[in-house]
Amino acid sequence: MSYFDAASAAPLHPVARQALLASLDEGWADPSRLYREGRRARMLLDAAREAAAEAVGCRADEVVFTASGTRAVHTGVAGALAGRRRAGRHLVVSAVEHSSVLHAGEAHAREGGTVTEVPVDRTGAVDPGAFGAALRDGTALACLQSANHEVGTEQPVARVAEVCRAAGVPLLVDAAQSLAWGPVDGEWSLLTGSAHKWGGPAGVGLLVVRKGVRFAVAGPADEREAGRAAGFENIPAIVAAVASLRAVRAEAAREAARLRELTDRLRARLPELVPDVEVVGDPVRRLPGIVTFSCLYVDGETLLHELDRAGFSVSSGSSCTSSTLTPSHVLRAMGVLSEGNVRVSLPFGAAEADVERFLEVLPGAVAGVRAKLGAPAPATVTEGDALVVDAVGKLCPVPVIELAKVIGDVPVGGTVRVLADDEAARLDIPAWCAMREQEYVGEEPAEKGTAYVVRRIR
Amino acid sequence: MSYFDAASAAPLHPVARQALLASLDEGWADPSRLYREGRRARMLLDAAREAAAEAVGCRADEVVFTASGTRAVHTGVAGALAGRRRAGRHLVVSAVEHSSVLHAGEAHAREGGTVTEVPVDRTGAVDPGAFGAALRDGTALACLQSANHEVGTEQPVARVAEVCRAAGVPLLVDAAQSLAWGPVDGEWSLLTGSAHKWGGPAGVGLLVVRKGVRFAVAGPADEREAGRAAGFENIPAIVAAVASLRAVRAEAAREAARLRELTDRLRARLPELVPDVEVVGDPVRRLPGIVTFSCLYVDGETLLHELDRAGFSVSSGSSCTSSTLTPSHVLRAMGVLSEGNVRVSLPFGAAEADVERFLEVLPGAVAGVRAKLGAPAPATVTEGDALVVDAVGKLCPVPVIELAKVIGDVPVGGTVRVLADDEAARLDIPAWCAMREQEYVGEEPAEKGTAYVVRRIR
Repeated sequence: MSYFDAASAAPLHPVARQALLASLDEGWADPSRLYREGRRARMLLDAAREAAAEAVGCRADEVVFTASGTRAVHTGVAGALAGRRRAGRHLVVSAVEHSSVLHAGEAHAREGGTVTEVPVDRTGAVDPGAFGAALRDGTALACLQSANHEVGTEQPVARVAEVCRAAGVPLLVDAAQSLAWGPVDGEWSLLTGSAHKWGGPAGVGLLVVRKGVRFAVAGPADEREAGRAAGFENIPAIVAAVASLRAVRAEAAREAARLRELTDRLRARLPELVPDVEVVGDPVRRLPGIVTFSCLYVDGETLLHELDRAGFSVSSGSSCTSSTLTPSHVLRAMGVLSEGNVRVSLPFGAAEADVERFLEVLPGAVAGVRAKLGAPAPATVTEGDALVVDAVGKLCPVPVIELAKVIGDVPVGGTVRVLADDEAARLDIPAWCAMREQEYVGEEPAEKGTAYVVRRIR
Repeated sequence: MSYFDAASAAPLHPVARQALLASLDEGWADPSRLYREGRRARMLLDAAREAAAEAVGCRADEVVFTASGTRAVHTGVAGALAGRRRAGRHLVVSAVEHSSVLHAGEAHAREGGTVTEVPVDRTGAVDPGAFGAALRDGTALACLQSANHEVGTEQPVARVAEVCRAAGVPLLVDAAQSLAWGPVDGEWSLLTGSAHKWGGPAGVGLLVVRKGVRFAVAGPADEREAGRAAGFENIPAIVAAVASLRAVRAEAAREAARLRELTDRLRARLPELVPDVEVVGDPVRRLPGIVTFSCLYVDGETLLHELDRAGFSVSSGSSCTSSTLTPSHVLRAMGVLSEGNVRVSLPFGAAEADVERFLEVLPGAVAGVRAKLGAPAPATVTEGDALVVDAVGKLCPVPVIELAKVIGDVPVGGTVRVLADDEAARLDIPAWCAMREQEYVGEEPAEKGTAYVVRRIR
C-alpha cells in the first residue's frame, strides 16, 4: 500500500514511538502531585513544553497542550473572542479555513456574533489587502491558516499579521498543515497545531497564546494547563508529539526539497497523462507534499475505490466521498472543479517509485470510471430555441457528463439548459465551462431543481 | 517506591501497554476514510466501542469516547442540561462530587442556572430521601458519583436512580472510581469514566448517554463520535483503555477481596498505632482499595514529604497540599477533620509487604511532624472569664495544636476562644471537639479573623 493521505493523518514517526514507549513508564502519574512519580511526570511535561516552544518560536508559558488540534482551534477561537468581547463580536476568517475554524465561527454566530469570510483567488490564497478590508471597529479576532489542507496553497500569513497588528486585531494562525516544515513567520497572536499531522500520536494538539493577548476561557474551571485545557495531562503522548516534531524538523529542509520534486513531477505529468484534468492550488507557493487535482466526468468516490484497490490511499474533496453530500468548501471558494477530485498528500519518506506507480495507475483508473459512467444517452428535449438536459435526481458528475455529450448538438451562439438538483452542479458546470472555454450564462430556478444555462461559443 | 495513589492515576496495565503498542501500527489513520488504513482504524474503533459497551452494560451506540474523564463530565453535564433546557435550569449534585462535576455546576450557575448541593452524612454518603427532596419542577439533571474519590464511600446510586426516575429527572453517574470494579447498578441515564483510573492510558474518557435521554451538544459542530466529542479519535489509546478495562474486570472479584483485606487491616490498626487519628469514610460500603485518615496536630504537606522520603506516594485533602489553600470540599461536607489528612489508594496488585511497611513507617513519620510543630508555647490571654488563644496568621494545624495545649487550663464548664484566620480552622476545630468530646459552641467574627468558641465539658 502507498499511503498518500498525510494531510489527513501521518503514520507515527519512529521517534514518536520510541518516546511514547519510554514515557509510558515515567509519565503516567499526576504531574500536580508532590511525590516522586508526580515530580517525574512534571519534569517530562516541563521539558516537552520547552521543546515545543522552541520549535514554534515562543515562550514555554505560552504553550498549552490540548487533546487535539480541533480542540486547540475551538478553545483558541472561543477564548480569544471572549477575551476581546468588549472590543466587539466580529470574527474574520478566510473562506478556506479548516472546518474546525469555520465551525467555531458558526458557534460564535449562533451566540449572536458576526462572521466575515474573506474570499480567496483561484489558487486558494487570500489577498492581504482584502483581508485587511474585512477588519473593522468591533473585530475581535481574525483567523488565517498557514497553508491550506486541501490544496496545499500557502497563505500570506506574515503580511496579514502586519495588517491585523496595524488594526489592533489579534490573528490566530491554524498551522496544522505547516508546523512540520517550520515555524510560522510574522507577528501572529495565537497559533494552533495537531501532532498527528507531523507524525506524533493522536490526542495532542497545540495552542499557543502570546503574552499580552486577551484570553478568557469559557466553560467549567480546571486547573490543568493554566486553566486552558481541562482534563488530566496526557504526558506520554505529549512527549512523543514533541519528540516527533523535533525529528521531522531536523529532516524538514532535505525532505521538503525531495517531496517538492515529486509533487512538481505530479503537477507536470498529470495533465499529460489524464485528459480533462485540472490541477488546482498555487503551483509555487505551496506545501511540499500536496497535489490536488479534479477529473471531469468522474465520480470521486468510485475513483477512490479504484485507487484503493490499486494500493493507493488518497482523499477527495468531491461531494460523493463525504458524509455531508456537499462538495469541499475549499474547492467551492476557489471556484474550481470539484468532480473527480483527488488530494495526494505525501508523507515524510514517500518513495519515488510509489509516485511513479501512481502516475502509471491513475490514467487507467480514471478511464475506467469514465467508461462506467458514460453509458446512458442523455435525455434531451428542445424548449423554444434552447436544448434542455434533464439531470434531476442524478448525482455529480452525471450532469456535467450529459452536458458534455450534447454541447456538440448546440449551434454556436445557442444555449443549453442543464436541469440538476445535485448541489455539486452549481460548482462543476461553471468550472467545466471555464475548462472548455464555453460561456456560463448563469442559473435560474426551474420546476425541478435548478437550470444552469450554458452558451456554446466555439 | 510504593505507589499508593491509584485513585489519582493508576500505572499503565501491562495489557493496556500491549494493546497500545499493537494498535499504534493499525489505528493511526482517520477512521472516516474509505481506504484500507482508514477501514482498519474504523474496525479497531468499532470493536473497542462494543467491548466498552459490554463492560458498562449499555449499547455500543450509547458510548462516546472523549479525551479525558473531565471532558466526559463537562460534556455530559452541559449536554444533558442543554437537552432539558425546556424542563428547567436546575441542577442537583451531591456535595462530595469530583471537582469536574462541581465546576460544571459552577459554569451552569454563571450562565444563569441554579444548583443545589445535597449534603452527605459523616461517612460521605447521600441519603436517597434527601436527594429526592432536592428534585423539583424545573430540575433538568441530577449528578451522583458511584463512589467517592477521596474517602472511598459508595453512594446509593441504584436507589437514587429510582428516585430520579420517579421524578422524571435524568441521573448522571460519575463512575470514575468504580468502573474498574464492575458496572454501575440501577437505571441511570448518563455515565462517565476515565481510563487512567483503571490502568488505561491518559487521554481517554468515557461518556455514555442512554437512548432516549435528551442531549444537545454545545459549542462548535464536529462529526466525530456522533457529534459529542470533537477532535480526531485517539484510537490506539481507546483500544488500550478498553483492553485494560476488560483485563481489570477479569481480576476484579479476586483483587477486590484481597485489597479489602489490606484496607480493613489499615482501618483497624491505624488508630492503634497512631494517637489522635480519625479514619474517615464508610467502614463497609466503600471501594476496596481506599483508606483515608486524618491526624490531629499534623501538617498534611510535611507528612506527605516525610512519607515520600520513606518511599510512599500518597495524597492528601489537607489545605496545605493543594494549590487552592482550602481544605478538601469532601472532608468539609462530611464534617470530619481535614488536618494531617492522608488518602491511601492501593493500585491493583499492591503488595501486602508494602502495606505492612507503611504501618511500620507511619507512626514515626506522624510523631516526627508533631514534634516539629509542637515547640512554640501558645500565646494566651484572659478576657473576662474566657481564655483566648491568638492563632491569627498561623496555618493549619497550629490553631488546633494551641487549642489542645490550653484546654487543660480551662475549668470544666469554662470556654476558650481560638482566634484564627486560616480557613481550615472552621472545619478542624469542630472536628477536634468531636474527637475530644468537648463542646463546640460556635464561631463569632473577631477583630482579627474569626473566634472559635470551645467549652470544656470533661
